Amino acid sequence: MKGNSGKILHIDLTAGTTSVEFPDEMFYRTYAGGACMGAYYLLRMMAAGADPLGPDNVLVFTTSAITGAAVSGNARHCVSAKSPLTGTIMNSEAGGFWGPELKFAGFDAITVSGRSSKPVYLWIHDGECELRDASMLWGKPTGEVQDAIRAELGDSRVRVAQIGPAGERLVRFACIVNELKHFNGRGGLGAVMGSKNLRAIAVRGSGKPDWADPVTILDLARSGAGKVRRPGVWADFRRLGTLQTVADNTTIGSLPTRNFSMGTFSEYENISGEAFARDMMDKPGTCWACAQQCKRDVKKGIESPRQIDARYGGPEYETAGLLGSNCMIGDVHALTKANEIAGKLGIDTISLGGVIGFVMECFERGILSEEQIGFPAPFGDGEALVRLAEMTGLRSGIGDSIAEGVARLAVGLGPEAQRIAVHIKGKELPAHTPTAKGMMAILYAVGSFGPDHMSGAHDEQFTSGPNEAYRGIGIYEKPPGANWDLNLEKVNIVARAQQLVSAIDSWSVCQFCFHVWTIYSMENLLALIKACTGWSYTMHEFMLLGERRLNLLRAFNAREGFTKADDDLPPRLFEDPLLDNGPTGGRTVDREQFLQCRDEYYRLVGWDPTTGNPTGAKLRELGLGWISEAAPTAPVVL
Amino acid sequence: MKGNSGKILHIDLTAGTTSVEFPDEMFYRTYAGGACMGAYYLLRMMAAGADPLGPDNVLVFTTSAITGAAVSGNARHCVSAKSPLTGTIMNSEAGGFWGPELKFAGFDAITVSGRSSKPVYLWIHDGECELRDASMLWGKPTGEVQDAIRAELGDSRVRVAQIGPAGERLVRFACIVNELKHFNGRGGLGAVMGSKNLRAIAVRGSGKPDWADPVTILDLARSGAGKVRRPGVWADFRRLGTLQTVADNTTIGSLPTRNFSMGTFSEYENISGEAFARDMMDKPGTCWACAQQCKRDVKKGIESPRQIDARYGGPEYETAGLLGSNCMIGDVHALTKANEIAGKLGIDTISLGGVIGFVMECFERGILSEEQIGFPAPFGDGEALVRLAEMTGLRSGIGDSIAEGVARLAVGLGPEAQRIAVHIKGKELPAHTPTAKGMMAILYAVGSFGPDHMSGAHDEQFTSGPNEAYRGIGIYEKPPGANWDLNLEKVNIVARAQQLVSAIDSWSVCQFCFHVWTIYSMENLLALIKACTGWSYTMHEFMLLGERRLNLLRAFNAREGFTKADDDLPPRLFEDPLLDNGPTGGRTVDREQFLQCRDEYYRLVGWDPTTGNPTGAKLRELGLGWISEAAPTAPVVL
Repeated sequence: MKGNSGKILHIDLTAGTTSVEFPDEMFYRTYAGGACMGAYYLLRMMAAGADPLGPDNVLVFTTSAITGAAVSGNARHCVSAKSPLTGTIMNSEAGGFWGPELKFAGFDAITVSGRSSKPVYLWIHDGECELRDASMLWGKPTGEVQDAIRAELGDSRVRVAQIGPAGERLVRFACIVNELKHFNGRGGLGAVMGSKNLRAIAVRGSGKPDWADPVTILDLARSGAGKVRRPGVWADFRRLGTLQTVADNTTIGSLPTRNFSMGTFSEYENISGEAFARDMMDKPGTCWACAQQCKRDVKKGIESPRQIDARYGGPEYETAGLLGSNCMIGDVHALTKANEIAGKLGIDTISLGGVIGFVMECFERGILSEEQIGFPAPFGDGEALVRLAEMTGLRSGIGDSIAEGVARLAVGLGPEAQRIAVHIKGKELPAHTPTAKGMMAILYAVGSFGPDHMSGAHDEQFTSGPNEAYRGIGIYEKPPGANWDLNLEKVNIVARAQQLVSAIDSWSVCQFCFHVWTIYSMENLLALIKACTGWSYTMHEFMLLGERRLNLLRAFNAREGFTKADDDLPPRLFEDPLLDNGPTGGRTVDREQFLQCRDEYYRLVGWDPTTGNPTGAKLRELGLGWISEAAPTAPVVL
Repeated sequence: MKGNSGKILHIDLTAGTTSVEFPDEMFYRTYAGGACMGAYYLLRMMAAGADPLGPDNVLVFTTSAITGAAVSGNARHCVSAKSPLTGTIMNSEAGGFWGPELKFAGFDAITVSGRSSKPVYLWIHDGECELRDASMLWGKPTGEVQDAIRAELGDSRVRVAQIGPAGERLVRFACIVNELKHFNGRGGLGAVMGSKNLRAIAVRGSGKPDWADPVTILDLARSGAGKVRRPGVWADFRRLGTLQTVADNTTIGSLPTRNFSMGTFSEYENISGEAFARDMMDKPGTCWACAQQCKRDVKKGIESPRQIDARYGGPEYETAGLLGSNCMIGDVHALTKANEIAGKLGIDTISLGGVIGFVMECFERGILSEEQIGFPAPFGDGEALVRLAEMTGLRSGIGDSIAEGVARLAVGLGPEAQRIAVHIKGKELPAHTPTAKGMMAILYAVGSFGPDHMSGAHDEQFTSGPNEAYRGIGIYEKPPGANWDLNLEKVNIVARAQQLVSAIDSWSVCQFCFHVWTIYSMENLLALIKACTGWSYTMHEFMLLGERRLNLLRAFNAREGFTKADDDLPPRLFEDPLLDNGPTGGRTVDREQFLQCRDEYYRLVGWDPTTGNPTGAKLRELGLGWISEAAPTAPVVL
């Protein structure tokens, strides 16, 4: 079975046992890997109603049949579980070095069920696996743990995916980190890992995947690397990283500012890609085998105004948007320090910035007092930001409440607080305000694991009309209206782009290299899939794969009782006109248009418009007819 | 605009005027050509309720952006209009030489509206067009007319698409023929042409399409030709043509016999590919630039028992199944003679054989007497067959009633006759009995232009599991059950294969070269499209194109008042167990399973399950939102 190792490792931490599954080729073609395969195992292995932080939750690590082919943008893996933040299914993607190494170590995926009675870590090397004591690692920051594991195993090239103290303490938005600076960030999967007493998974392998056509892989690798070296969009992206879009997003009024009450930030230049490159950056950082190098490596030896440990890397755009502008922090140093803390303790910076922005607004409105917080925490206070970040990861003081996420925190603070708590399905919003991007308004609402900016198209991508990737999925026209407009044409783009991106995530490749910045076209991606697997894999199968995974997610949620009513936006977006004078100043999301678009979305994707859940016919169409048998409680209609 | 001429010729025969439209590139990408572009113009140009034989009907001739690239299987064109047989929209495909020549003459498509006050033919050459008098041609057989036109224009290489006397006389299943032996056979489009007093369209051109990548086109042409030369499936197909499947279909009980009351024919060997090759064939015939050469050229000089004019070519499988087994004619000579008459007069052999088989059964049952027919016409009487064929084309005697099609003929003959009249939506069934092929049972019923064997997949194609073309559209598993079984898994294959084939027909390429016998894979087809147009055209766009065209067809029919109730099978298939002892002997189609499958089909394709018609959301998804505006009477729901 070309590309794949053909082996899935199943671990039961309660029993301390492992087993290996050998799926057939059609299984791999049907579920591919990454987000889709993760969702598959969750539906197959988990009963409805499982406690996300209990032993019945299943944590799945997945790569794909092309992971390990040394091409830019092909170094990712996905982690999936039921989220302790939302109660929904969750897929969370990371780049870095761990995914390819898992493949070299002999497995395409790992499922982890049960709960260890004591802290352990998992060691996988060349087809072997072993659970090892992690008692001595418990409570330590991620950097120390990585060092300790490598020392214990006597191999400095062991790749470690781990949780930090935040995950151990079940912070509901704790993340999983590999190489200290690549994050399966969202949805609290670090807490799931913590609840299982699993501190880390260390992998190392010398296996070489059996590729169908290594020459084409090499050609693709070279052509991608060649493009990146030329001046232009890729060079800019390498120089500035995702932080480049701080400026872009404030320009279109989409930069969340002051707890999503504004769409532009007057001090954006102090947290921009240029500011970081000038003041904080050592060099562009990278994932395995990637020529794009969009990551940020931090200068060593920064001591003032705060000491920053460079090992934890620099902030992404999302971090700048949430820990920066959303908290009105116009200070690249404070931002980088808060980011370092999040890496050290293992916290998702998006949710963290969402909750801290909310806390700051509560402080300014008098909903939370200085006594409750422990110190003044107005918007723009970098020191408060840094302290709150650390307290959250350690669940100390008010950090223990912040660690519950904005939805749960707001419940205890009364109706005014709840009205300004910006979340969907309990998950804090990413740094693209739906007030400025009509497509995000729909996408955030209908997303099965809550608001996610990497699940679809952004309105501004269509300014010059659809690019070749979009034309390739049948979007030939520029949608009508401004970025912020909501209309039926956009819903179609949302639905189709969501399937495209879903498939990209199910092949575990990087959206920046294969979609948004497009070093590689979709044609290149199909060629890569063929070169790895030997399959004449088509764009139609690719889109069906994306749709299949979206339906797996939704079927999981349906089983848990989620419906259309959960597909909504926070009240603030409908009710509070943006307070700034930017292009979206004074705007809200039109609720009536939103509801019309949401209904159109269900119709377009073939979900029951009364429940918002998959119909039996849609599941059968996607080869998922087994779901109604396997999950008889699912409210699935004919 | 690579590949396309960029010009659509519009002709108004009432006014005697022509105009040229220059659509933009996105129009071509959206509607491509062939069947899809034809359906587009019908919906755009024709009001609801038009008389199919009146001046308001529009007749559209379409090629595609790749027509004219000299590759096997790429010589086709489509004719579309409202059918006088069914009252539905109709697409009818033909191979031959005419389509490429139209492209060389400077146009991608022609629409013909209105009605000429006297017989005319249209002469198109190198971007010019001219209506010429055809009074002297009227009433003459096709061979004479082709000779006369070429003589008049002084060019023996002029390609002539024309009707015969049957079309002039408005035989409801009259066809359009080019080069005397390539037919836009089905649905009576020849009668539409006749009703417009348009006898022929002669084309000739020296233009060379501007291809994006001529080298790849040449490579594809060579690789295809190379494959065909090797021993194996292609060589067999060349030797036996589609007649090869006479044996295949009787083996699985799918050969319509004795007016669809049996599924095997004891004398099948007398009308098989082997019989024809032995007794009647000169050499394999061909379409333009095709190495496959699946057509049958007839020996010259056959004089006994009847004289046969070799110019009209030999029968296809469908002809053998309907004029042969369905009339119980085990006589390759009589079959070839009837086929020659159909070519000379311009009659669809499928409908013709369907009605004659019915007439023969009526004769045997005493519903039609020898007096009414003019001679005895029992099953198996070759002479009766030949006479009835000629009488139909000329509308003489009972031929005048046969010319109305089986549905109209049966109405005058009472309930027993109506019960054994085998048609759907007024159109006679092709030579694959739905009792033997579950997929055909569904496909025939839901087909917008009535029963059509070239609109989807056949059950026996999945005996060894889905091939790469089907895997490429997401069909990974062999459907459960025998060929004749009906189940939900098959419905999904029907729906998806129908879209695949619909797209093939919308690019005007041959299903034998690009799908069923697969000299070329779908990957090759996408490569050819790219080589011609320069577009990075994906399989997903391709499938959307197929779906778009199916929805255009359906929207047209919805506007005419067709609904789910019209999507049914003839009573005989549900009620009369097959009388033979073949594999399907004693079988009927299970009505309850059929209705379940039909409902599943609507759900899978996103049509309203209560009406069977497209929803507004489905139309908008396909970029067809304009239909509800353009056709406000359409019963389209949100």
